Amino acid sequence: MTKIASVELTPVAFADPPLLNVVGVHEPYALRTIVQVRTDDGLVGLGETYAADDHLERLRAVADVLPGLDPFDLNGLRQRVRDVLTSGGAQVGGMLNLQDPADVVLSPYEVAFLDIQGKQLGRPVVDLLGGAVRDEVPFSAYLFYKWAAHPGGAEDVWGAALDPDGIVRQARTMIDEYGFTAIKLKGGVFPPAEETEAVRALADAFPEHKLRIDPNCAWTVDTSVQVARELTGVLEYLEDPTPGIDAMAAVARQAAGTGIPLATNMCVIAFAHLKPAVLADAVQVVLSDHHYWGGLRRSQLLAGICDTFGMGLSMHSNSHLGISLAAMTHLAAATPNLTYACDTHYPWKTEDVIKPGVLAFESGSVRVPRGPGLGVELDGDMLGALHEQYLACGIRKRDDTTYMRTVDPGFSPNTGRW
Amino acid sequence: MTKIASVELTPVAFADPPLLNVVGVHEPYALRTIVQVRTDDGLVGLGETYAADDHLERLRAVADVLPGLDPFDLNGLRQRVRDVLTSGGAQVGGMLNLQDPADVVLSPYEVAFLDIQGKQLGRPVVDLLGGAVRDEVPFSAYLFYKWAAHPGGAEDVWGAALDPDGIVRQARTMIDEYGFTAIKLKGGVFPPAEETEAVRALADAFPEHKLRIDPNCAWTVDTSVQVARELTGVLEYLEDPTPGIDAMAAVARQAAGTGIPLATNMCVIAFAHLKPAVLADAVQVVLSDHHYWGGLRRSQLLAGICDTFGMGLSMHSNSHLGISLAAMTHLAAATPNLTYACDTHYPWKTEDVIKPGVLAFESGSVRVPRGPGLGVELDGDMLGALHEQYLACGIRKRDDTTYMRTVDPGFSPNTGRW
Repeated sequence: MTKIASVELTPVAFADPPLLNVVGVHEPYALRTIVQVRTDDGLVGLGETYAADDHLERLRAVADVLPGLDPFDLNGLRQRVRDVLTSGGAQVGGMLNLQDPADVVLSPYEVAFLDIQGKQLGRPVVDLLGGAVRDEVPFSAYLFYKWAAHPGGAEDVWGAALDPDGIVRQARTMIDEYGFTAIKLKGGVFPPAEETEAVRALADAFPEHKLRIDPNCAWTVDTSVQVARELTGVLEYLEDPTPGIDAMAAVARQAAGTGIPLATNMCVIAFAHLKPAVLADAVQVVLSDHHYWGGLRRSQLLAGICDTFGMGLSMHSNSHLGISLAAMTHLAAATPNLTYACDTHYPWKTEDVIKPGVLAFESGSVRVPRGPGLGVELDGDMLGALHEQYLACGIRKRDDTTYMRTVDPGFSPNTGRW
Repeated sequence: MTKIASVELTPVAFADPPLLNVVGVHEPYALRTIVQVRTDDGLVGLGETYAADDHLERLRAVADVLPGLDPFDLNGLRQRVRDVLTSGGAQVGGMLNLQDPADVVLSPYEVAFLDIQGKQLGRPVVDLLGGAVRDEVPFSAYLFYKWAAHPGGAEDVWGAALDPDGIVRQARTMIDEYGFTAIKLKGGVFPPAEETEAVRALADAFPEHKLRIDPNCAWTVDTSVQVARELTGVLEYLEDPTPGIDAMAAVARQAAGTGIPLATNMCVIAFAHLKPAVLADAVQVVLSDHHYWGGLRRSQLLAGICDTFGMGLSMHSNSHLGISLAAMTHLAAATPNLTYACDTHYPWKTEDVIKPGVLAFESGSVRVPRGPGLGVELDGDMLGALHEQYLACGIRKRDDTTYMRTVDPGFSPNTGRW
């Protein structure tokens, strides 16, 4: 019987544009850890996850106890992760702060184990998850307010987007190239009236597209309700307008008449949050993310819970590379009730660790890879180059706020303030 | 790629003792349908389910649309089941009445598909479910009040059990032979005081054993609360004392001080019942049963929901044969939070359709079969003999009440009456 022989973890950094959000602005490089799990019969399973130092430390501690494990033994993997981890918060970058790091650490290993299983069977991962209910997975155009360039850097191909015109221009570029049929605007950057105006401009320019806005909890309950009323009939869903399950529930009650579902990837980001959210009737759509929900199988559990408790299901994205996009695509293809277009940062990146050709966007969708496992192959040269970039860039933990303060010293994250 | 080539459904009848319950008494034969799914490369997957006429009719309708399907495509299987079935109640025998038959019809096919997958991979089904967290699965001694013989028949080896002494004697026989460390008494047959006395007698005779009683909703809320108080410190859980989520919630509130969890396989028997049960805080333990929860993967979803919403998990059993026991064992072995001993009617049967030797009870537990798939093999001669018995016995739908009335013409099921 095949056993795990060794695990290799490679932190990488890849160029990222100056995308604005409620906590600041993306730094010039985004970090990821590339996970390679090798079996004693020569198979390699791939995973991709965050790369903050404390997360890397936990990944390494778990890597040490995996040799000897059967790649089909996902329960054993989960138990070993739990055994190794001591309690403590998992800083995974961005605005998430998970109290129990077990599912975050489990995720890339579970994906790598499934990649190995698929390679062993000669079947794509989607088959191990119950089979594809769709051959192409729709993603959304993920728009950001942004600067034209990083401080001191050259202007990027996207240029600036700091008002409704800029946002519509960005949407046009992205939709022309990728064919997306849904649009998400990352908000929480400018006062609500300006962002509402941007949504209206998008609605005018793309009347057939589904629209969402995500101010990352920048608004009060009252503001959230007011925006929901103003954008009735315009928004597909309203994502994390305000912080916390109780406040989201208040918005849900007061804005019920608008018919706009509230979505979240901030107040429900772990299994422990589901019962309180259901009891409070706080959210109507959960944005899943296999990176912190414990991998693909546990994301399917989340999907089943949403189905059972009458909540919709969409998919969240942080800055990521192709291994994650492949995993997201297999998962989404095997999840019947994932009926919203998934978020992805993929168009914003210019470098990757996988060989090109497999993950193409057509009409806004990615075709599910049909090769064994995840169906993507590591590019050793690029892995080495992006690891060198990681070593050279000096970033060891995502910190949009500190970076923003190099430009705007008085900046502070405005969660729940507007 | 392997495809389903054909499906064979064989209804069988096997001898069953006169076991008493709230709706009457077991008839001389219990019915099951044996499902054989064949692939175009010669593999056979096994499943086992109920055999009432209307259920058989639905199974046959689904069987017609399975050829050509990939045995890994469980989502496709589920979709075909849904497409084929029209709405209407699923009479599955006994006291269950499910409004949506899809999960009941899906179950034996899903198990057969997983059996095929395992055979194709050379791995036991437990590996496909995430790997074994335990190598032996504990079951409980499932005691029944019973007559010594069917009307007009010869006394069976168990003899009569109609009072505390008879129940203790039955428990002794069963535990001596199987080694069970937990005991469940099927109640709802005699007035609550008599059944409480039987539980006390069991507690005296088996002070180290976990004890449960299941009156199948024979009691009122007040009686349920009173029994819970009387048996505080004696019961591991109290199963379905009274009918319906609201009444169970009332018992849960009023008997909270006893610390006895309420368990159910009557008011929560489908995914649609979970949200109301959670909102009402009606039950503390759900008894899963892959036969009506849609197979093994969907039973794992139920397990994950119980884990997420703070409910315990046990396992229910109807009269069944070895294919089901194998499936139950694989499922239980791969389910970390299935921490209660599972119910099984297995000791009550004297005939089976599988070749003996794989499913042995040791110290009350069944070792997980390690052969490919379910790890059990059909005995063609026994299958033929039990099918002949089905044809000859004339029973086409379980009906304990009508059978009871041949002895006690005035009998009526006493659900919620005591």
